Amino acid sequence: MPNEPLKVAICGASGYAGAELMRILSGHPEVEVVSVTSERSSGKSPVELYPHLNKYAYLSYEPLAPDILAEKADFFFMALPHKTSQPAVALLYKEGKKVVDLSADFRLSDPLVYERWYKTPHNHREVLRKAVYGLPELHRAKIKKTGLVANPGCYPTGAILGIYPALKSGLASPEGIIVDSKSGASGAGRQADIRFSFCEVNEGFRAYSVASHRHTPEIEQELSAIAKKKVTINFTPHLLPVNRGILSTIYLKTAKKTSTENALGVYKKAYRSEPFIRVLDPGALPDISAVRGTNRCDMAIKLDERTQTLIVITAIDNLVKGAAGQAVHNMNIMMGFPEETGLDQPAVFP
Amino acid sequence: MPNEPLKVAICGASGYAGAELMRILSGHPEVEVVSVTSERSSGKSPVELYPHLNKYAYLSYEPLAPDILAEKADFFFMALPHKTSQPAVALLYKEGKKVVDLSADFRLSDPLVYERWYKTPHNHREVLRKAVYGLPELHRAKIKKTGLVANPGCYPTGAILGIYPALKSGLASPEGIIVDSKSGASGAGRQADIRFSFCEVNEGFRAYSVASHRHTPEIEQELSAIAKKKVTINFTPHLLPVNRGILSTIYLKTAKKTSTENALGVYKKAYRSEPFIRVLDPGALPDISAVRGTNRCDMAIKLDERTQTLIVITAIDNLVKGAAGQAVHNMNIMMGFPEETGLDQPAVFP
Amino acid sequence: MPNEPLKVAICGASGYAGAELMRILSGHPEVEVVSVTSERSSGKSPVELYPHLNKYAYLSYEPLAPDILAEKADFFFMALPHKTSQPAVALLYKEGKKVVDLSADFRLSDPLVYERWYKTPHNHREVLRKAVYGLPELHRAKIKKTGLVANPGCYPTGAILGIYPALKSGLASPEGIIVDSKSGASGAGRQADIRFSFCEVNEGFRAYSVASHRHTPEIEQELSAIAKKKVTINFTPHLLPVNRGILSTIYLKTAKKTSTENALGVYKKAYRSEPFIRVLDPGALPDISAVRGTNRCDMAIKLDERTQTLIVITAIDNLVKGAAGQAVHNMNIMMGFPEETGLDQPAVFP
Amino acid sequence: MPNEPLKVAICGASGYAGAELMRILSGHPEVEVVSVTSERSSGKSPVELYPHLNKYAYLSYEPLAPDILAEKADFFFMALPHKTSQPAVALLYKEGKKVVDLSADFRLSDPLVYERWYKTPHNHREVLRKAVYGLPELHRAKIKKTGLVANPGCYPTGAILGIYPALKSGLASPEGIIVDSKSGASGAGRQADIRFSFCEVNEGFRAYSVASHRHTPEIEQELSAIAKKKVTINFTPHLLPVNRGILSTIYLKTAKKTSTENALGVYKKAYRSEPFIRVLDPGALPDISAVRGTNRCDMAIKLDERTQTLIVITAIDNLVKGAAGQAVHNMNIMMGFPEETGLDQPAVFP
Repeated sequence: MPNEPLKVAICGASGYAGAELMRILSGHPEVEVVSVTSERSSGKSPVELYPHLNKYAYLSYEPLAPDILAEKADFFFMALPHKTSQPAVALLYKEGKKVVDLSADFRLSDPLVYERWYKTPHNHREVLRKAVYGLPELHRAKIKKTGLVANPGCYPTGAILGIYPALKSGLASPEGIIVDSKSGASGAGRQADIRFSFCEVNEGFRAYSVASHRHTPEIEQELSAIAKKKVTINFTPHLLPVNRGILSTIYLKTAKKTSTENALGVYKKAYRSEPFIRVLDPGALPDISAVRGTNRCDMAIKLDERTQTLIVITAIDNLVKGAAGQAVHNMNIMMGFPEETGLDQPAVFP
Repeated sequence: MPNEPLKVAICGASGYAGAELMRILSGHPEVEVVSVTSERSSGKSPVELYPHLNKYAYLSYEPLAPDILAEKADFFFMALPHKTSQPAVALLYKEGKKVVDLSADFRLSDPLVYERWYKTPHNHREVLRKAVYGLPELHRAKIKKTGLVANPGCYPTGAILGIYPALKSGLASPEGIIVDSKSGASGAGRQADIRFSFCEVNEGFRAYSVASHRHTPEIEQELSAIAKKKVTINFTPHLLPVNRGILSTIYLKTAKKTSTENALGVYKKAYRSEPFIRVLDPGALPDISAVRGTNRCDMAIKLDERTQTLIVITAIDNLVKGAAGQAVHNMNIMMGFPEETGLDQPAVFP
Repeated sequence: MPNEPLKVAICGASGYAGAELMRILSGHPEVEVVSVTSERSSGKSPVELYPHLNKYAYLSYEPLAPDILAEKADFFFMALPHKTSQPAVALLYKEGKKVVDLSADFRLSDPLVYERWYKTPHNHREVLRKAVYGLPELHRAKIKKTGLVANPGCYPTGAILGIYPALKSGLASPEGIIVDSKSGASGAGRQADIRFSFCEVNEGFRAYSVASHRHTPEIEQELSAIAKKKVTINFTPHLLPVNRGILSTIYLKTAKKTSTENALGVYKKAYRSEPFIRVLDPGALPDISAVRGTNRCDMAIKLDERTQTLIVITAIDNLVKGAAGQAVHNMNIMMGFPEETGLDQPAVFP
Repeated sequence: MPNEPLKVAICGASGYAGAELMRILSGHPEVEVVSVTSERSSGKSPVELYPHLNKYAYLSYEPLAPDILAEKADFFFMALPHKTSQPAVALLYKEGKKVVDLSADFRLSDPLVYERWYKTPHNHREVLRKAVYGLPELHRAKIKKTGLVANPGCYPTGAILGIYPALKSGLASPEGIIVDSKSGASGAGRQADIRFSFCEVNEGFRAYSVASHRHTPEIEQELSAIAKKKVTINFTPHLLPVNRGILSTIYLKTAKKTSTENALGVYKKAYRSEPFIRVLDPGALPDISAVRGTNRCDMAIKLDERTQTLIVITAIDNLVKGAAGQAVHNMNIMMGFPEETGLDQPAVFP
């Protein structure tokens, strides 16, 4: 006899991450989406905003009312803007609900770092202390036991996964790390803004938030924990004229003599049991188009022998492994579902 | 206790339609893909050509050897070029295998029409007589009983589905039908051809095969059967700078006084039990991006009162409803599986 | 000794048509741009909005003050929204200034038709009576003598040019004309609107304003004048995921027995002296990428003998021949400059 | 009285760089293109391959016959593949013709370096010694006097221009330089190759030739000359799904304490007289769409104070400043024409 489905609510479900949660959960056999919230689209059906979500014709967006929602659902995906997420997450968590928060509000364990980069106070520090940074490949054991997961940012996901084995193994130095990332336009969210209008993005390419992007401290927090010392990095995001995908090109100085084969061995070993990481064989290089719509992270490692630089390239779908897919992966771990449940479909290519 | 899976072979599996069959079948619970063929890529793994198909690392492309294949598999998807398909399909069909042929070789019931448009003889007329044109919305009963389905062309699928209810009901005249279609570049297949290189397609848009495209007689064959008289149409295909999708704008002269509401009613009724057709409500218009990766056909109907023209707009994914998805739908019908099996995932949007 | 340059003002110069006027005029040897207006961007330099317009660093956007502008400039390009354009154009015209109006306000000679389609009164009917519809290929003689040109809409330009020779010559019937047009996203203007954000347009394709687009009466007005009887057409616009370009596929019923060769002869003769029209040889078909950035209209003509339908396909750049380029062409004619001045650069391809 | 135009031949004119030379030269008042060569397209008109080049209907592609060409033309643009270019350039140069070679054959002053990276012998070393590396901003004086310019590669142009002022001034260290570049698909040339077909590039993004691209030694040669010591760099090229443009993100370690303002001052001073370089003001960042179709290089400089890394971002059009435009600039310098002749049109945006 099948179990009763888990009752799930998605708060902030009118944006792309929320819509992607709906898409993924529509194929998840253990879950029933019972509520979706949106202030601006309150009263509308998700199908009005997203014609592809016709399976959700039975739902209407509701305004965010955490206490009412707490009666309806047992598991919460929070896809609200940062700052707005703080009190809603805190309330639901204190009610004993399980929560995956896709905002930045519970990612940085040091509230002062949060306040410096996000320019807003953190008013729920006691809840922050309970949150686990939800990168399963690094923190699976803790995720299993927590009631609150801070789902990683899209850029940090691709960056940290690309650096972790080299740093952990001592192959790479924690000094002078450079992360040069390129993201599709859905990373900017669903918004009316001339800078993200079709004609301004299409056939263009540009960097933005140079030396100032808010995902920087998040990457540094995790790398520092791995290296067991304070790590400071260069991170440069760019806007790609595609809908989805982040490719990160990472430059690591070697800490000891190595080779491409040796480095590859370290990465393959580190990720050998990971269902969503694929370390490519020598010669192959990742393309964002091969992970589109999936929770996979493809990566390649190559040593530039002339400069003793390890070049790691990672590709993810920013809306899936970089947001909604990783959130569902975290839910699967928290709830004891098989980790790939709902997340095992191949990319739609071309 | 679960049934033993159906053993499936895909012949001509190195092209986009073949790859799409693999993608869809990877999520089909009743099926096991036991063989994939390709002459040019013989010996390679599908993953080498298509990194997103990592679930098929266990397979290698084999050369097409129908008698050997007949030992291995019970159900065949044939995605070979027209002409090449004829003998392979004939042999497998005569062996008692169930076959869905994605080529044009068994679509036109009159071999003379085939020979006129395809400039090659039809050498398997007795098999041709057994073939059923695999548009489930029109021919479900026959598909159920046949061993050989000729899977419709991508353009004909969107065109015929858009015209069928109006013509069948007598709402539209069979005279003066115009089908103006726009297709994504995957419709041209996976090929090295300057005309389909990125720079020649991107930021461009053009018509091609004006008044001479081979899908014309296929559309006319089906419309003639519906109208019970010979129908001749105008069909103009265009090349869109997108990967997937066909939008067809269809102009029909009304045969009697009607209204948008009335026409919509006729369409909604005609397709009310169809799992893959969605007739949009007034005001909504289909977009290829809402059906990307799915087997759905979205459509809108509007009467231009000033000219008494019924304008029907249909959107499909050329590789799914226009090829691999419809082929799997046909298999589901032929094998008695629930029709949506393997075909119920939402579009990946954006 | 060179002439003193013509002093030109561009009103409503923060949109794409205004920017395109600046781009084109930067290479026009007879002209000096002395003022550009914009309410929202008042005080800013055009370079802030459009980094490619660095030649205009000497200018700042001013608010629209027609009487002040009348002191500064002698020739006016008006790229204001419809309705707003009416009083500004009227005032400048009455001051004796030469004006090319890119809005819809003076295109429809019958003010009642304007009021029906644009849902706003026409308050300057006496000025309207003076306006000449600025399609040089049809109205060159009148443009030469007028002080006020109503620059055609983008869709009407490609549609009328494609129909004119066939209708004028009696080759085509004025009944049952269908214009199926596909436009790049710059046709929607520079605006913050989710519907035109990158992710909602890219990899998508859709029709819009079916049987209700405001360019319909404009096309009908000109076709009626050519046919010397009231012409009613079907016009369906679509949104292409490209920056620039309109391709119109036009279906005309033949009025007498003809052939592709004969029809081509009629078109080649009609446009033999036109500097911006290129009638392609048999076999060639236009692509919007070949006219990008230019004032050219490429076209192909083919008879579908099976249905006796003449298919005409025209390609223009919506911002150039469909807006700013045609406006400059009109200025050249009005001022007696050689017609190609400033407009003779090849497309930027790829 | 105007001068007689310079008679120009373009060898290898069927590719994108050759076509771009034709486009640019069509607006150059001092030049007449008298011959274009292509082996594969011999006998065809350039208009057949490139409908936008209708001004060249008077020409047909000829096979490459240097001695015949030497009779016809006085100035040669060579856009042949490397290796093929060597003998043709050598012959023409020895005939006393002025030559700009767009291939790699005469860029690397050390023939051994050439042979190591290009895997082919250099058979014209005495001519190689005469060649000047044609980056006008660095070598204007030598270009003025030479008969043979080796036109820089597209990536090296954007990279060297972005590093030159910082390295020359001692602001940046020559150690640990990283160049992360992203190029549009026209950089791969006009070719039939599945890897560059529309569907394989569109909505994708990938690195290629990691730690092994042939433009690496070219960048290093010029940086070494500036630094007066051997410089070794990391260079990673990526393929962007756009037609044109290269954005290079460059990471330089500071050699002394500095600030963004100070660094900007160094760059503005270095390029203050350069007609094609624009150093952007603080806050602005370059976009490839703002230089499309132009010979301009836009750049931004920002110090990351946390890591003392100078981040320089440069944007060029790979076919113009990265190929044909720079070649024409070199011709202008060699012939004493004003440097901006034929190169002063704004970008076509959007």
